[in-house]
Amino acid sequence: MGNVMDESRANLSKLFTPESIAIVGVSGKGFQFGGSSYLSRLLECGFKGRLYAINPRIEKVLGQKAYPTLEALPEVPDMAIICLAAKFVPDVLESCGRIGLRHIHILSSGFKETGSREGEELEARVTDISKRHGLLVIGPNCMGPYCSASRMTPFGASPGMRGPLGIISQSGGIAQRMTEYACSLNIGVEKAVSLGNAAVLDCCDLLKHMADDEKIKVIGMYLESVKDGRTLLELAKEVNREKPVIMLKGGDSDVGEKMAASHTGAISGGRKSWNAFFRQTGVTRVRSMTEWMDAIVAFSLLPAPAGKGVFIGCAGGGISVIAGDILMAEGLDVPALSETTMDGLRSIVPAVGSIVGNPLDSFEMSLNAHRFMEVLELVLEDPACSMILIDRLIPRNIYHLPDVEDTTDAVIDFVRTRSDRKPTVFSADYDGGGTDLALKGTEMRARFCQAGIPLYPSVKRAARSLMHLYRYHSFRQSAVV
Amino acid sequence: MGNVMDESRANLSKLFTPESIAIVGVSGKGFQFGGSSYLSRLLECGFKGRLYAINPRIEKVLGQKAYPTLEALPEVPDMAIICLAAKFVPDVLESCGRIGLRHIHILSSGFKETGSREGEELEARVTDISKRHGLLVIGPNCMGPYCSASRMTPFGASPGMRGPLGIISQSGGIAQRMTEYACSLNIGVEKAVSLGNAAVLDCCDLLKHMADDEKIKVIGMYLESVKDGRTLLELAKEVNREKPVIMLKGGDSDVGEKMAASHTGAISGGRKSWNAFFRQTGVTRVRSMTEWMDAIVAFSLLPAPAGKGVFIGCAGGGISVIAGDILMAEGLDVPALSETTMDGLRSIVPAVGSIVGNPLDSFEMSLNAHRFMEVLELVLEDPACSMILIDRLIPRNIYHLPDVEDTTDAVIDFVRTRSDRKPTVFSADYDGGGTDLALKGTEMRARFCQAGIPLYPSVKRAARSLMHLYRYHSFRQSAVV
Repeated sequence: MGNVMDESRANLSKLFTPESIAIVGVSGKGFQFGGSSYLSRLLECGFKGRLYAINPRIEKVLGQKAYPTLEALPEVPDMAIICLAAKFVPDVLESCGRIGLRHIHILSSGFKETGSREGEELEARVTDISKRHGLLVIGPNCMGPYCSASRMTPFGASPGMRGPLGIISQSGGIAQRMTEYACSLNIGVEKAVSLGNAAVLDCCDLLKHMADDEKIKVIGMYLESVKDGRTLLELAKEVNREKPVIMLKGGDSDVGEKMAASHTGAISGGRKSWNAFFRQTGVTRVRSMTEWMDAIVAFSLLPAPAGKGVFIGCAGGGISVIAGDILMAEGLDVPALSETTMDGLRSIVPAVGSIVGNPLDSFEMSLNAHRFMEVLELVLEDPACSMILIDRLIPRNIYHLPDVEDTTDAVIDFVRTRSDRKPTVFSADYDGGGTDLALKGTEMRARFCQAGIPLYPSVKRAARSLMHLYRYHSFRQSAVV
Repeated sequence: MGNVMDESRANLSKLFTPESIAIVGVSGKGFQFGGSSYLSRLLECGFKGRLYAINPRIEKVLGQKAYPTLEALPEVPDMAIICLAAKFVPDVLESCGRIGLRHIHILSSGFKETGSREGEELEARVTDISKRHGLLVIGPNCMGPYCSASRMTPFGASPGMRGPLGIISQSGGIAQRMTEYACSLNIGVEKAVSLGNAAVLDCCDLLKHMADDEKIKVIGMYLESVKDGRTLLELAKEVNREKPVIMLKGGDSDVGEKMAASHTGAISGGRKSWNAFFRQTGVTRVRSMTEWMDAIVAFSLLPAPAGKGVFIGCAGGGISVIAGDILMAEGLDVPALSETTMDGLRSIVPAVGSIVGNPLDSFEMSLNAHRFMEVLELVLEDPACSMILIDRLIPRNIYHLPDVEDTTDAVIDFVRTRSDRKPTVFSADYDGGGTDLALKGTEMRARFCQAGIPLYPSVKRAARSLMHLYRYHSFRQSAVV
């Protein structure tokens, strides 16, 4: 898809798994964002291939020999990262074309996004030269590609953590935060790419590439604009049928749209067309970084639900009331339980201080791992419940409970062996609170994430994520039929 | 307001500042939720008055002498907490009436909320006896009153932290979580009350009491039902004009409504009437614990905004685009800045890597305290901006920034001296991420909270809180005019 792709689809993978990279424009003067920080970061990450620094005015940089030009290198590298000022970029592209270096990431800014005629002209030259030489260019004005398998992870906090996620982002900052978030929640990022102005390769090219990568199971996208909306629509429809695409669309307001023009030179396009895009493709639409990451966690870890009925277990009456309200407000169902389930619950949940039903209000379920398992066994068998949400207590001294046993490990072990049956997630109501609670909650979340079980910091975030999951699978099923 | 209140308003304060409390039904057999846990908790809190344990079968409990009956006490205590099984409660109330003990908290459950005829009858007897003796009863089926000044804080994590907040909740669990959240964010709770079935005193009585308490500046309410909707409407309209009332209404869905009936015997009443209630009173409506606490932080710490124009400063282009979208989606404005502000910003923000405007995209503002102050001085003078939101970076090693100075203290000192001019809040985008980021973000949040400056874990939560603040003040102004 996309004109460049048609010619040379086979070669796009070298942008993610190059055996050698030339960094053009590595300053010799200590630290600077650009060539030197990229070189330093790739060394730190343990990039598996060969690295070449290009700078005619120095001999060595960061312990690496520096070469004066691309032509002076001992080989034609698989990829170049161009970090020079915008006005020098076209000449470097010509050099690349001459020596047959076709995979290029232009980090430099100063193009169309400036809004200046000079910037626009420079970007047009980038496009022309690339077409003439068949160059596969990511950028300009971007952080470029990221690939855990190559240990080429110049952005993101956890280099080399492989996993089910692919990220395509027009914004480098957002790509960076997303890789960081995902890895910190134990969702590995197989590949990511920050596209910037997307003067040559655009989101369609990269979406196709990630769709074809079998390691990638879930695709997260941040877009401000697209050149060819029709192509994206058709492609996204096709891809989303195979693997969930979850998109944050930037520039969805007058203010955001204007800002996007300054950011990546983007014309975001009519909001109505984007509404139609989401409706027709079934691509999951999110509105914030948090909602995006929450949905990605659900899609990465959970099986397809059979319906939208959720069983919700809480500790506390008011908390249960609000949880029911929130699930319903998100568009989910909180169905009545079967008579078998109700009888079973009545026999194990104490009559005083609990409310048997859905929601189930039971402190004991939260404090006693055995009771928790009994409840779950019942609910897993109940056909009314397609998904399970348990609001866990964070141990608080205010419950007057001396030495409450930590049931987390037992609960995790139990759920892990049954999580393929019905999507099962947890929440722990801590994101409203301050330091102590957030620390305890964060630690509990980390233990669940480490085991591959979603735990959200509020019922609302869990509910929203389950709703996205249900909607996606229900759309996919109806599209197939 | 309310029939009981009319007679004896002066005396309601003894429920919060009793000089002596009798706890009726303190088990001698080790730990149990109820009388013994209440006694133990009040001792731990350092309750300032005298405590009497009532149990005819023991001599001593938790180091305290036990008395056989209320009549055997050396004085008539200011308040009683009744923790016996429901069927014994009416007799104790009769005793209270006989000895002139009028302020009572019934902790026991087993009344109307059971749905049984027996429970209903018992509750009717509680109401009758209370009326006959003029008893001021909180409950049954609840955690009762909480007062920091008295160090009578049997629920909540931070006993005795006084402050601007009053909490009225039908649910004990929610009252408990809210006091804990508020204190952990450095918002002291002057008084709180869990009402349960509200058989005698109801939310109107308590709302009036808190409205009259000059120490309380902001009132948070959780309601599942109200007996006299008309009275609450008129009272809330009046109170909300003086101090903001922020309400989480439970039972706002079929499921929640049914659950509420089992929880506090509540008939939540038509959803339409509640919609009208919020429209007519201007009471701020929230839909989750997190949104509630976020709004309370804003109302407790920020002055009234002059309009709904927000200046938003971010670090990163995509982040700025999304922030603009989110603010607009919440119903706020992100206005163009004045020419003076724009000229000023252009002179201090570097041309490369930044976007001057609103949103302002500037890494430097986040990394350099001096630059931050220059930006804020300009924006504080700009009449287009009534509120200020700064999305702060959490120091991340992925920014390739060696040894970035921690500007938090300088930023806090600056904002603290100017926060009376325009509501100024921060966000730090960390609630999507995992452990490391959440720990750093939580620590940063704690430092801001400690200084009385709101910091939210996402732009969205900050934006929602500012919108609530703007709506409230704008409603109040239009109501006055």
